Amino acid sequence: MKLLHTADWHIGRRLHGFDLTDEQGNAFEQIEAIAKKEQVDGIIIAGDLYDRRLPAESSVAMVNQMLQRLNLTDHFPVYAISGNHDSATRLATGTPWFKQTDLFLHTALSQAFKPVELADTQIFLCPYFEPFDAQQYFDDDSLQHLDQAFARVVDEMKKAFDPSKKHLLAAHFFAAGSSTTDSETNLTVGGLAAVPTDLLADFDYVALGHLHGKNALHMRQARYSGSPVKFSLSEAAQEKGVWIVDTDQTPVKLTFKTLTPIHDVKLLTDSFDHLIHSTDDPAIDHDDYFGITLTDTQPIPNVMARLREVFPKIVTLSRQDGFSTQVRYQGESGQQIRQKAPMTLLKDFYEQVAKEPLTPQQEKWAKTTLKQASEGGQPS
Amino acid sequence: MKLLHTADWHIGRRLHGFDLTDEQGNAFEQIEAIAKKEQVDGIIIAGDLYDRRLPAESSVAMVNQMLQRLNLTDHFPVYAISGNHDSATRLATGTPWFKQTDLFLHTALSQAFKPVELADTQIFLCPYFEPFDAQQYFDDDSLQHLDQAFARVVDEMKKAFDPSKKHLLAAHFFAAGSSTTDSETNLTVGGLAAVPTDLLADFDYVALGHLHGKNALHMRQARYSGSPVKFSLSEAAQEKGVWIVDTDQTPVKLTFKTLTPIHDVKLLTDSFDHLIHSTDDPAIDHDDYFGITLTDTQPIPNVMARLREVFPKIVTLSRQDGFSTQVRYQGESGQQIRQKAPMTLLKDFYEQVAKEPLTPQQEKWAKTTLKQASEGGQPS
Repeated sequence: MKLLHTADWHIGRRLHGFDLTDEQGNAFEQIEAIAKKEQVDGIIIAGDLYDRRLPAESSVAMVNQMLQRLNLTDHFPVYAISGNHDSATRLATGTPWFKQTDLFLHTALSQAFKPVELADTQIFLCPYFEPFDAQQYFDDDSLQHLDQAFARVVDEMKKAFDPSKKHLLAAHFFAAGSSTTDSETNLTVGGLAAVPTDLLADFDYVALGHLHGKNALHMRQARYSGSPVKFSLSEAAQEKGVWIVDTDQTPVKLTFKTLTPIHDVKLLTDSFDHLIHSTDDPAIDHDDYFGITLTDTQPIPNVMARLREVFPKIVTLSRQDGFSTQVRYQGESGQQIRQKAPMTLLKDFYEQVAKEPLTPQQEKWAKTTLKQASEGGQPS
Repeated sequence: MKLLHTADWHIGRRLHGFDLTDEQGNAFEQIEAIAKKEQVDGIIIAGDLYDRRLPAESSVAMVNQMLQRLNLTDHFPVYAISGNHDSATRLATGTPWFKQTDLFLHTALSQAFKPVELADTQIFLCPYFEPFDAQQYFDDDSLQHLDQAFARVVDEMKKAFDPSKKHLLAAHFFAAGSSTTDSETNLTVGGLAAVPTDLLADFDYVALGHLHGKNALHMRQARYSGSPVKFSLSEAAQEKGVWIVDTDQTPVKLTFKTLTPIHDVKLLTDSFDHLIHSTDDPAIDHDDYFGITLTDTQPIPNVMARLREVFPKIVTLSRQDGFSTQVRYQGESGQQIRQKAPMTLLKDFYEQVAKEPLTPQQEKWAKTTLKQASEGGQPS
């Protein structure tokens, strides 16, 4: 059996206000092409199809069309679960009919224990759940934390294990030992909501969703596919793609197939001057999404507008070393500054910002204006 | 062919703040029971399955469960369309799969022209649409109003007519000549958004949705089923139910099957005293929803709270004849009133409200207090 493992589509997601519809649509088409080329026997989507529990109509139309294409047009079996970003209730719409064409989309914990039975493989589809759901399902209030709940869930799954078959699990959670990036939700922070990886040891492969980087967990038989698209600057260095899982081999053979974005998400650290004059630099695709860090320390008037002329899709802009003016002012106390004459303050300020002294004419204007201001009169 | 015609479920609707989930669930079960008893060959739902374009999760779960029960559990073919209250995009979720079990749910105008082909009948499912949709579909900007657009739509449908079969249409709009009630949307007000009934003449039966009363249109071969539940006081007098349509007869034979609410919606006009003492009246089910009109003309302290002790589900409360105090004051001008002494005003006011004069002790207190107030002192 050859399966394609993807997750965390997050349809509807934006990158600091930038629409990612085209990126997500394009990544989907690459996934579809890989599935066809590899002639996979099915596609696992390990949760977070949507970015929000209440998706926009445009997102609903997009996910509907994607599932339709994979399952009804291309005739791929699909094995999917809801993630913590999905509304399990809304995602459940239509699922009783989907099974007829081997589209399995599980959204309730109760569906986790009856595997999809293939000739040589059992696929357990465990949607995202919270300890409370396990307490309800097992009628057991002692399942206070996710690790306890998940241990109980795996025990229950094992009761259905057919020893003559391989056992696959699709699930959506934070496996202990994995590193988080800042585009996942707060739910992943802290140890409470983590699942110890040893609970996954009884499966031949665990197709995980939740963390967006494929290297977030290094276990031979459990992997995050990561998201198909970079959703934050913290994912800039990540390679995006899908796993091709060959279950005919023991251990299962994993091959990572990369996805190429239309516009990449990149971090760039350089001086304003270099950046502004980088238009001919073949190493830079100026249409990418950029997190720019300036090495300059002086103030730069209109800096964002001027940079956006060269890099239209700036996601964030920051300074590597702060501002030199701040450094200079560290030598003067508030008391010292307050003792200075207004004209001295003005001259110092102008020089710091403009990097040149006032001209004699400017100084004359300033003096006249200051005098009028102190006398309460109007400048002429 | 025997079909059940229902419409305007409006799942998620509330009646002046009262939850109608139980009423709607119960009405659904009655519809299901009628379909089974009548052994119908299919169920037409003529739009407005949801009350809102963005339904709550609980509403989504309810509609999902209802469609699943009719189609997958009871194996009824279902012929449904989206109404103006539905989000066509959200309602489209799963529809490509639904067809496999003869659940046809059309949400786009483009789906209106290919009928569902049964042995002796063609069913055209025309979702709610606006003139703009028709302009787009036909690439014809001249279709400015719904009557023009609908004429074009019917012309297009007729091209697919099989003369050897009966022709049924399910649609959701305001047919001219029908009477509106105030629980439909403003879209139905005025002639612009109406469809002339003569456009419906070429169909053997038109199963309409949009208006909530079954008597809103009297055409032999076109009917509103009305909503299964009363959604406003203006529907209090309506008989709710579904049509059983027998297409084997010419003209089609229509039988109305009534639905019985758990708690009815009723108008009640009586005196406060009668109503408060009506607890033993067998003609009144005090758990119904009531629009109460009081015949009293005097003010009644705490009137709503006292009535709610007897009628817990009061929807509205009004007066038939206004207040008698208002009538009395019509004889006095503002100028006349302002000339009265404060003590006279107080005595008159008390008498009007309490229907009895001040006692000597009350009058003494009032005089003392008025004197202190006019002197700016504090009452002792």
